[in-house]
Amino acid sequence: MNFTPKVAEILRNYESDNPGTKANLARILTHGKLGGTGRMIILPVDQGFEHGPARSFAVNEPAYDPHYHYQMAIDAGLNAYAAPLGALEAGAGTFAGQIPTILKVNSSNSWASAVNQAVTGTVDDALRLGCAAIGFTIYPGADDIFEMMEEIREMSAEAKSVGLATVIWSYPRGGKLSKEGELALDVGAYAAHMAALLGAHIIKVKLPSAHIEQKDAAKSYEGADWSAQAARVAHVVKACFNGRRLVVFSGGASKEANAVFQDARDIRDGGGNGSIIGRNTFQRPREEALAMLDRLVRIYKGEE
Amino acid sequence: MNFTPKVAEILRNYESDNPGTKANLARILTHGKLGGTGRMIILPVDQGFEHGPARSFAVNEPAYDPHYHYQMAIDAGLNAYAAPLGALEAGAGTFAGQIPTILKVNSSNSWASAVNQAVTGTVDDALRLGCAAIGFTIYPGADDIFEMMEEIREMSAEAKSVGLATVIWSYPRGGKLSKEGELALDVGAYAAHMAALLGAHIIKVKLPSAHIEQKDAAKSYEGADWSAQAARVAHVVKACFNGRRLVVFSGGASKEANAVFQDARDIRDGGGNGSIIGRNTFQRPREEALAMLDRLVRIYKGEE
Amino acid sequence: MNFTPKVAEILRNYESDNPGTKANLARILTHGKLGGTGRMIILPVDQGFEHGPARSFAVNEPAYDPHYHYQMAIDAGLNAYAAPLGALEAGAGTFAGQIPTILKVNSSNSWASAVNQAVTGTVDDALRLGCAAIGFTIYPGADDIFEMMEEIREMSAEAKSVGLATVIWSYPRGGKLSKEGELALDVGAYAAHMAALLGAHIIKVKLPSAHIEQKDAAKSYEGADWSAQAARVAHVVKACFNGRRLVVFSGGASKEANAVFQDARDIRDGGGNGSIIGRNTFQRPREEALAMLDRLVRIYKGEE
Amino acid sequence: MNFTPKVAEILRNYESDNPGTKANLARILTHGKLGGTGRMIILPVDQGFEHGPARSFAVNEPAYDPHYHYQMAIDAGLNAYAAPLGALEAGAGTFAGQIPTILKVNSSNSWASAVNQAVTGTVDDALRLGCAAIGFTIYPGADDIFEMMEEIREMSAEAKSVGLATVIWSYPRGGKLSKEGELALDVGAYAAHMAALLGAHIIKVKLPSAHIEQKDAAKSYEGADWSAQAARVAHVVKACFNGRRLVVFSGGASKEANAVFQDARDIRDGGGNGSIIGRNTFQRPREEALAMLDRLVRIYKGEE
Amino acid sequence: MNFTPKVAEILRNYESDNPGTKANLARILTHGKLGGTGRMIILPVDQGFEHGPARSFAVNEPAYDPHYHYQMAIDAGLNAYAAPLGALEAGAGTFAGQIPTILKVNSSNSWASAVNQAVTGTVDDALRLGCAAIGFTIYPGADDIFEMMEEIREMSAEAKSVGLATVIWSYPRGGKLSKEGELALDVGAYAAHMAALLGAHIIKVKLPSAHIEQKDAAKSYEGADWSAQAARVAHVVKACFNGRRLVVFSGGASKEANAVFQDARDIRDGGGNGSIIGRNTFQRPREEALAMLDRLVRIYKGEE
Repeated sequence: MNFTPKVAEILRNYESDNPGTKANLARILTHGKLGGTGRMIILPVDQGFEHGPARSFAVNEPAYDPHYHYQMAIDAGLNAYAAPLGALEAGAGTFAGQIPTILKVNSSNSWASAVNQAVTGTVDDALRLGCAAIGFTIYPGADDIFEMMEEIREMSAEAKSVGLATVIWSYPRGGKLSKEGELALDVGAYAAHMAALLGAHIIKVKLPSAHIEQKDAAKSYEGADWSAQAARVAHVVKACFNGRRLVVFSGGASKEANAVFQDARDIRDGGGNGSIIGRNTFQRPREEALAMLDRLVRIYKGEE
Repeated sequence: MNFTPKVAEILRNYESDNPGTKANLARILTHGKLGGTGRMIILPVDQGFEHGPARSFAVNEPAYDPHYHYQMAIDAGLNAYAAPLGALEAGAGTFAGQIPTILKVNSSNSWASAVNQAVTGTVDDALRLGCAAIGFTIYPGADDIFEMMEEIREMSAEAKSVGLATVIWSYPRGGKLSKEGELALDVGAYAAHMAALLGAHIIKVKLPSAHIEQKDAAKSYEGADWSAQAARVAHVVKACFNGRRLVVFSGGASKEANAVFQDARDIRDGGGNGSIIGRNTFQRPREEALAMLDRLVRIYKGEE
Repeated sequence: MNFTPKVAEILRNYESDNPGTKANLARILTHGKLGGTGRMIILPVDQGFEHGPARSFAVNEPAYDPHYHYQMAIDAGLNAYAAPLGALEAGAGTFAGQIPTILKVNSSNSWASAVNQAVTGTVDDALRLGCAAIGFTIYPGADDIFEMMEEIREMSAEAKSVGLATVIWSYPRGGKLSKEGELALDVGAYAAHMAALLGAHIIKVKLPSAHIEQKDAAKSYEGADWSAQAARVAHVVKACFNGRRLVVFSGGASKEANAVFQDARDIRDGGGNGSIIGRNTFQRPREEALAMLDRLVRIYKGEE
Repeated sequence: MNFTPKVAEILRNYESDNPGTKANLARILTHGKLGGTGRMIILPVDQGFEHGPARSFAVNEPAYDPHYHYQMAIDAGLNAYAAPLGALEAGAGTFAGQIPTILKVNSSNSWASAVNQAVTGTVDDALRLGCAAIGFTIYPGADDIFEMMEEIREMSAEAKSVGLATVIWSYPRGGKLSKEGELALDVGAYAAHMAALLGAHIIKVKLPSAHIEQKDAAKSYEGADWSAQAARVAHVVKACFNGRRLVVFSGGASKEANAVFQDARDIRDGGGNGSIIGRNTFQRPREEALAMLDRLVRIYKGEE
Repeated sequence: MNFTPKVAEILRNYESDNPGTKANLARILTHGKLGGTGRMIILPVDQGFEHGPARSFAVNEPAYDPHYHYQMAIDAGLNAYAAPLGALEAGAGTFAGQIPTILKVNSSNSWASAVNQAVTGTVDDALRLGCAAIGFTIYPGADDIFEMMEEIREMSAEAKSVGLATVIWSYPRGGKLSKEGELALDVGAYAAHMAALLGAHIIKVKLPSAHIEQKDAAKSYEGADWSAQAARVAHVVKACFNGRRLVVFSGGASKEANAVFQDARDIRDGGGNGSIIGRNTFQRPREEALAMLDRLVRIYKGEE
């Protein structure tokens, strides 16, 4: 039984949510090898939508099959699997009840001319597919950010009323933000905080750099040492209601395994709740990916 | 991980259900000490509604507290806990994610003048409370049976559309049925069959006696030996689409522990899917009840 | 391709229906061994609801399994299979696209105190299960007949708007009707006519006897010879808008095979559109039932 | 073009109706041989529902076919054809645009135990079938009269909102009314008045006798000579808002032709708007019926 | 009976769909000369909308008549016929039940100023017209792509709930895509993948060239030989969930018959599910078109 005091403590932070939403958060928090630790690893597979199938899967051909990802998330003992509508539909029957799923309800693609996403799934879809949560991306900084915020406001209100949880991917992008600024510490913390203010149960952001983008914010960051990634993670956790909201960090593009492990140690040490890691797993051969995920689990358990 | 081939096999029988409903059935089937075996023990606590609080709980005072029952079902490793609206509301927050729950959406009481029940919960309630299923009682034989059937038709259609499962308590009562007839083999099999035809995912009936009530049916039962309870259970299983639907048996009023164990052995040997056992647990002291439930688990596992 | 001029001619009679409903009628009329002949054999399995499982299936145990009936209807090359909600749900996935199905949307049972039925399925159910039609029973003569008529008016209007067909089982029963009267020629013709006036696409009645029940109607039947069953069938066909509506006849309780064959010859010779035959098939061993159905097909084809 | 000053004058009486409803009344008033005269003959064929097919049609077999009646009404140059749902559906495609139709939306039958009717059609049906009006029967005096009134209130409100007209068949029956009383002058006038008060555009009543049923009303009828049928018709017309509402009279059971003609002359002379005549036409051979209808037209035109 | 193991295998991939949608997919897969092979040929006639009537039909005048196309699809034994609302309405009554139809629910035209389409049909239309599926075009790359995706999300959710299938035409167009890029292999595979992620049951794309458009994707295509069309088809099939979704290829503008045949062989050899072929049939004389379609059938059957 993975319903530990740690999980109970985390759920108490969601004090305005109904028991249905708490139960779905609990499902994610108690599932898999990290079940009960308060940490989690989530497999997201929306790269096909974002970058196209070949860029996503050609390097590891079995990954063209949606069942591959379900099975990977299950075999690796992850906490949840997140994907767009069609990908979940292609496996939700076979894998019903085997792993919590998150329906990614909006999606972008490489050719989009606007810094925005299309709403491609609904709360009703999430219910009929047995999902524990919906996932939604916002682009703070983009010209369309108010529209995106209003979309997730409406969808998360509906999700909460039927006992689902809401995960917000908060990715600063567009508008006046510089490319470097998208990963800036102040920007990342701000983006995480807005997701929390929008009512997200789980917040997904990128690991921030030590760069400070906003002139107005610079003063607030003076005098502290942000060179350590764990310190930056801790700052983002603080921005998420001082740890009252779960925050997970994305790994970004494929990279060398040791870098992935170091990121996880920093997330752990900074008090982050875990990793949401896609390309770094499904773009590796299955055995290699499983070995990497197993090591990530051990890191989050504090075993190495 | 309790998602065994046995569970997958059972889920395949629910071939018209969406993945959400399958996932909720899977949650019940994979939870607790019997998780993965295809057998289950469910704790139902609607006695307070049916018989009043003192008749139900005075013999074991801690049972006045709804948390007592949640904790009992969790500690005993049962598959699910079923109760009316208020009772679930009183504990759904504390125990969110710890055990699958079934919202009993209709209820009778000792003073009712009609052989019927009031609809006291909804599918929306079940969603906000994080339930895996709704539970509904029908009284085949009663004058109001058509009304009851039309109520559950509407509620189970709604439940199925949002990924919940439906449990039907099918208790012959009223009309021309004799008291002895309510427990008759032919009557019990018929009641179970009607629940299946109404679209129930899990059917709950009483353990039938060897009595045959209906004259028209007598011929169909001739020439077979119905003296063994396991044979009678097997007949009811057959009436549930030849085993394509899960069927659990209620224990009835409190009785001596060995009788409870023998019932379980007969249910197991007849191919039934388990017990739904209320008074026989919560009307015993907690330690005694836990010991009894533990032994029931071992019986269903075939260990004794 | 079974879309014959005969089928086109029949469809033209449904001149107020939309193409969706016509297409579903065509599916029934072109399917199976009688496809294209304008005749049909339908397998209805609602005996479990009406008489209980043992009385229905004990004589041929494999028939406890809902898949048995789907497979029987398919293997025998019948035009359609009709059953209540739960029975269709138990096989609609496996057999999707293999045979037209009719969702029986109301059902009675042996213990009912009223001469009425419960509405146990909906048009939405029929759509999600891929049915070609809904089926509904009315009891002309019963005290509740107006209520039943109003239920089918609402359901068939909804069915027609979404392109489904409506089959009405019209069984005189209750009120002042004598037992003999339920099968009387005048009563049967009247019951068929009311089904037509209610907007049924296919009308199902029992084979009438030569008895005339209503004193007021006696005069209208004088001077003709009603001793031949084919003549009585022809009269019922006339009552169904002079053949503008499809009418099929039920076989009643199990009986000797030659009687079943003679019934079919009379239906054929009287211009009826076929048989709806349940107990006489599923209460026989499978091979025997298949042989009987094959011979019925040959009879309807005029081959014997 | 039959849109005469007379028609315009009649339409002006329907001063709260929308132009759609007025246009449909105009369609009836301008169609056929009596088009433009302010008089009308309507063919109603609901006898099959009320009395069964054989009692209705055996005497003139072609009348079993719904097309027969459409064609009769068209060939005789009548103003409108009224029938229940199934009968209109069977010909509405073929005869679309050839004659105004009235959907009879409630129906009784010979076996009904209540003095009431089932609602068997809807305003939506009337629209999709291209009808000019709905027709509804009330039984003033019956125990269920309030329910019937509430049904027509709802249906005629809906009809008016979509531009259809409402015809009320007002037939005193049931309760404390004596058999003789059902045709009494005071009763008939009262029944017609209630139909007018319920918002009917066209009122259909039976030709009243000179009998006065209600003691309380007797005084009001004293001192006048009611022996002439035309005088009784004039009294009914007065009860219909002093002629502001169209009122037509039914012919009752089949009878000798001269009696039918005399009735028409009395209706004409009393200021009634015409006849609604069923059995007296379709229970005669077609040529005879056409000749009778032609003579009725001449009578209403004042030509004989 | 064309319900082969191959069809059953394909249907199993649609594991989140209800039996109604599976039955409609089965209808398409079992109909016509290719019924049961897992391959299909679909006749789409939306050229009149896209290019105007003269450009579409002047070369073969009988094709101005919508019945011509229905009859062609039926006589050629194709799997389905797809067209916009008015074109289906013009023949759906006559051809009801003779061939599965697909309602094209959005349409563009030659004068449109936006790279988008108007929604010109609905799921309700598809039901009343007896269609098996809706068809929808998206233009990945266009400025309005998010709006188009949101439209089909809503319509396909509704379609799935009532048992219809969804076909997505995915045609890269607009935005930064070069003309050559619209047919590029990487672009076509990406477009097909997005249709799958949006929940399409059947995906329609153009046969891709060997050109690679996206710089970011170039690396993923390196080292493989894309000169063979069959290899490119196989890549697109992979992008459709590794073959878990049906994918058919359009033939493009009219061309020489041998080129059409070679395309079909390549589609077949690459594992594609068939052709959707419009102009190449209806812009040829009927006999020539039938001969061509017959040869395409033989090619898909592997007979030449």
